[in-house]
Amino acid sequence: MDLALALGRRGQGRCWPNPAVGCVLVQEGRIVGRGWTQPGGRPHAEAVALAQAGHQAQGATAYVSLEPCAHFGKTPPCCDALVAAKVGRVVIALRDPDPRVDGGGIARIRAAGIPVTEGVCAAKAELAHLGFLKRQRIGRPALTLKLAASFDGRIATASGESQWITGPDARRHVHALRASHDAVMVGGGTARIDHPSLTVRGLGVTHQPVRVVASRHLTLPHWGPLAERAADAPVWLLHGIDAPAQKIAEWQARGARCMAVAVGPDGQLDPLACLQALGAAGLNNVFCEGGGTFGAALVKADIVDDLIGYTAGVMLGAEGWPGLGTLGISELAKAPRFEFVETRRLGTDIVHHWRRNIGAADR
Amino acid sequence: MDLALALGRRGQGRCWPNPAVGCVLVQEGRIVGRGWTQPGGRPHAEAVALAQAGHQAQGATAYVSLEPCAHFGKTPPCCDALVAAKVGRVVIALRDPDPRVDGGGIARIRAAGIPVTEGVCAAKAELAHLGFLKRQRIGRPALTLKLAASFDGRIATASGESQWITGPDARRHVHALRASHDAVMVGGGTARIDHPSLTVRGLGVTHQPVRVVASRHLTLPHWGPLAERAADAPVWLLHGIDAPAQKIAEWQARGARCMAVAVGPDGQLDPLACLQALGAAGLNNVFCEGGGTFGAALVKADIVDDLIGYTAGVMLGAEGWPGLGTLGISELAKAPRFEFVETRRLGTDIVHHWRRNIGAADR
Repeated sequence: MDLALALGRRGQGRCWPNPAVGCVLVQEGRIVGRGWTQPGGRPHAEAVALAQAGHQAQGATAYVSLEPCAHFGKTPPCCDALVAAKVGRVVIALRDPDPRVDGGGIARIRAAGIPVTEGVCAAKAELAHLGFLKRQRIGRPALTLKLAASFDGRIATASGESQWITGPDARRHVHALRASHDAVMVGGGTARIDHPSLTVRGLGVTHQPVRVVASRHLTLPHWGPLAERAADAPVWLLHGIDAPAQKIAEWQARGARCMAVAVGPDGQLDPLACLQALGAAGLNNVFCEGGGTFGAALVKADIVDDLIGYTAGVMLGAEGWPGLGTLGISELAKAPRFEFVETRRLGTDIVHHWRRNIGAADR
Repeated sequence: MDLALALGRRGQGRCWPNPAVGCVLVQEGRIVGRGWTQPGGRPHAEAVALAQAGHQAQGATAYVSLEPCAHFGKTPPCCDALVAAKVGRVVIALRDPDPRVDGGGIARIRAAGIPVTEGVCAAKAELAHLGFLKRQRIGRPALTLKLAASFDGRIATASGESQWITGPDARRHVHALRASHDAVMVGGGTARIDHPSLTVRGLGVTHQPVRVVASRHLTLPHWGPLAERAADAPVWLLHGIDAPAQKIAEWQARGARCMAVAVGPDGQLDPLACLQALGAAGLNNVFCEGGGTFGAALVKADIVDDLIGYTAGVMLGAEGWPGLGTLGISELAKAPRFEFVETRRLGTDIVHHWRRNIGAADR
């Protein structure tokens, strides 16, 4: 199952709206088929593994990191394919909460007389499929927030200079994280100031994540990579329901997809509504790269699942720009806390990964 | 020599003004004597190791992490003791730049017909004896600056609440670092706001580092552990040459040692003058725990050698207190940069260690 999970990771960032599933077929202790959800979401992992195994699938044990689908979508149901291939046993990490599946796949396999084991490596699979599961359960993708800062937590000098605080190894790591998410998202301020391209570069990666910018009034620059190079990767704009129609039309003419979301009492786009819109559009995993105001809004809304910090051994002083905006925290006990996952060196810098308290309410 | 360096570390923080030296005597592949500089600075490492070895020292190889002394201080010269014990060979990591030694120990041993090898593990020994070497060469101790902050670089909430951002493992680590330095230092602001005790607690450590507070006008609270419990550990106060005589007398009456230092053009105590005063008083290694203003002054003066960061997975927002004051940095290229040494988990938090660029000018 560990291998099935590892194979599934290969599809991450390129198979949405489908989950990034992995499948391994084992015949008498020997791997006869391996598969993962292919770009665009199909073929599914099971179909790839069965095709590879051919007649050797008969009697094999199939390890699948998520319950095989039971419905006709763009592909026939995987549970039927496993039955047709006459596998001897099916081992599943987790049930698929999609209402069209939700135990239905398991039931169909069992009905064919094939034994099914559930819950193997369930905790790992829960993390691997976090975004897909959240979207099924509560309608929003999983959200990773990144902050690259100086030793003293600053993201730019007083004059706004930020290139480069971290070194090439950290920046390459960011590109790898972009590639493993379905979308890269920034707030309007960052789009205006940094003119980021938000694309994956230098890793030999051929697909690009969706580029998402949240800007209530669509007050975004008409030049720069987002405006001029829509062909590089999709551009989706989250705007307020009160955004000027003219702006929406302009951006649509440039190839951008515009999505209206609710505005909160603070006059900013409602962070949860932003994520729900992206979830409804099929995204499972979103990587937010700031800026400070938008990042703080996401933290305040308690919808950040993973936190990735890059820290450089440089000091910018209190006059530098803060990496996170105001949070309105009155007591330390009420400050949002994340659990430690990992820390390691990346060239001249370090990366540290934290995760939302697993026991926290699912919102 | 690695063992000699490790033994030397046992004396760190308790043998100033002497260096924390380690010595190992090896007779036919067997360790016959081990020693390190004892509390208060004597006996020296070599004397301890020779006493342990007894007659087995004859013909043995002596590994010493710093050149044996050649002068009569409070103990007779160690080079003569090695000669008298008839060791067969002496291996030394580094020469002692103390003008009373500086090659003299090596010369005396060689003059007695005993071969001496120099420069073994020199780079490691350079780091191990950094503070002592700096004091000999440029008149100031080595300085470690600590910053314990939230994920977004804040050391307190807007209301000043800071207990506790980091968890018990990180705090225990801080106490261990206090114990391995000769002194713990804070600025006057931290002394006024936090009323820190600055003592080592909970580690079974019996000695205490000197407690140093830098306050130009000695405007320090008359209550709290520093004022009321001078018996817990020495209290040294760095004050401006213009500090009120009455205040100086009051603090001296409480048992504090008061040291006048120059005031810089910004009206603050000159950071380098502070360290030079501590060096003249015999301290080799100083651990500074802030606050933000004092820490920034030390960084600006380019006299921070080691940087220790503790980062918690908590977020306090831009309204929280910055860990480091303003630095007046105009360009990112001119921001002070430190080299990565280590990062690891400490319970709920991480610690990251950075070191001043080794190639930087010695100041």
